[in-house]
Amino acid sequence: MAIFSFLTPVLAAVICVLIVIILQSRKKSKASSAQSNKNNNIKQESRPWVDEDLQDNTDIVADEDGKDDWQDEEEENLQHVPFTVVRYPEMEMVNRSKEFFELLNQRRSVRFISNEPVPREVINNIIRAAGTSPSGAHTEPWTFVVVEDPETKHKIREIIEEEEEINYHKRMGEKWVNDLRKLRTNWVKEYLDTAPFLILIFKQVYGLHSDNRKKTHYYNEISVSIACGILLAAIQNVGLVTVTTTPLNCGPRLRVLLERPVNEKLLMLLPVGYPSKDATVPDLKRKPLEDIMVVV
Amino acid sequence: MAIFSFLTPVLAAVICVLIVIILQSRKKSKASSAQSNKNNNIKQESRPWVDEDLQDNTDIVADEDGKDDWQDEEEENLQHVPFTVVRYPEMEMVNRSKEFFELLNQRRSVRFISNEPVPREVINNIIRAAGTSPSGAHTEPWTFVVVEDPETKHKIREIIEEEEEINYHKRMGEKWVNDLRKLRTNWVKEYLDTAPFLILIFKQVYGLHSDNRKKTHYYNEISVSIACGILLAAIQNVGLVTVTTTPLNCGPRLRVLLERPVNEKLLMLLPVGYPSKDATVPDLKRKPLEDIMVVV
Repeated sequence: MAIFSFLTPVLAAVICVLIVIILQSRKKSKASSAQSNKNNNIKQESRPWVDEDLQDNTDIVADEDGKDDWQDEEEENLQHVPFTVVRYPEMEMVNRSKEFFELLNQRRSVRFISNEPVPREVINNIIRAAGTSPSGAHTEPWTFVVVEDPETKHKIREIIEEEEEINYHKRMGEKWVNDLRKLRTNWVKEYLDTAPFLILIFKQVYGLHSDNRKKTHYYNEISVSIACGILLAAIQNVGLVTVTTTPLNCGPRLRVLLERPVNEKLLMLLPVGYPSKDATVPDLKRKPLEDIMVVV
Repeated sequence: MAIFSFLTPVLAAVICVLIVIILQSRKKSKASSAQSNKNNNIKQESRPWVDEDLQDNTDIVADEDGKDDWQDEEEENLQHVPFTVVRYPEMEMVNRSKEFFELLNQRRSVRFISNEPVPREVINNIIRAAGTSPSGAHTEPWTFVVVEDPETKHKIREIIEEEEEINYHKRMGEKWVNDLRKLRTNWVKEYLDTAPFLILIFKQVYGLHSDNRKKTHYYNEISVSIACGILLAAIQNVGLVTVTTTPLNCGPRLRVLLERPVNEKLLMLLPVGYPSKDATVPDLKRKPLEDIMVVV
């Protein structure tokens, strides 16, 4: 008993230490669970019942959710009208499909673009064509910013080259810089000055209802990418060239430069024009049909 | 002292309880920090220096990373060859751009597809056209699975309708089911049986080097979506119809049914055929050019 009595202050001290440890670990655990709650919330908000295979992180807004057949929410109020298409005889159909393939098969990503002017009406029409793309719930979540002002083009070039240089020197691993060196690629993008038009394609990650509530733009990235596919076909169809670029880390600065609202994020930048006289392309081949198509 | 002596067993008991609490909270905190580490790893792996605006969650493989101008890694070994395009006179260029827009502007998402046969050669050519799409680092990360076998089409329908019904009854909120009810949409998708061809477009989320190491497929979802845009244009160009669908939660089951490898994930399903005689479409309008284009 004497030993216990002697130990009592020691026990009291031990209790104090244990209490401090508990409080600290509670705090940590709380902070860390706040963190993981945050992550969980993000995960839960991102459509728990939606196919995880689809990576398009549509910004989800409360009490709305993804849909699979891209049907418009407002279709209920619309009249349904009979639909017909121009019907081609089979031979013509086969020919049309062949000619369309042959036209598009001449498309290449071209990094040498001449400064020759291009009619604005052509640019308008290719963007009109891109605007016929389907979109999740017919939200048409795209903005095509056409830059023809030389000063703005140059500012865009400065932003992109600056970020690219940082990418080179800071953000990329050494191996990657080496890989790129072999490619003779660098951060100088002359075509951003020379191309008569730069088309910057923004995806609207959400929309706004008339009462200012946020409106979900289902599959906005996929939708805008589809529209870009149609845009590329339209560019090829008129004999112009471009190169598909996704300027790394430049989106926010370009958005501010072009005064786009916060719900728009840069998806792609396409310089558009004629190829310059000395344009070259690497002698790439495409996969043959049997490597990309499987018939069941 | 007597009081302390009396309290000693109590203190000992308190210490035991505190130790148990500490152990438990350590355990929790460990689990939770493991969780948040996992989340952090995911975040860190997803290209810390890559533009966060781009949501395409390319599966990243060690010591490779995103790139901005989609240049091919193997271009270094390729000869660079002169590049020219067919050059149209300005008037013809304007006309071509206008006609292409008018052709695509007749495209609508059609959910009523006739069972009339369509020449396979046409399907081959529209997929060839889609295969001309640009892709991150020229990885061509797409597989087009063409289903013409009636039994397989029916199995696909069963999978999709089953999942859809679950979506209806379990995964969707009540509000959303109500919204859909107004749309007269349900989970019955007759076109999956009637369309002569279903094209299921898979994105290859990574590739394989010859030595079986994983190969990063940069921007694979954006690339495959662009290819789908070109495919939609090619379908429209031959007078066929389709509807853009992204079957919710069906990807894994459809992948297994169609015996696709694990690096392929379903992006889209397009039923392709002629419209049925009684086909209708909602009387939707598209945004005018001034609502989608900004000129700087």
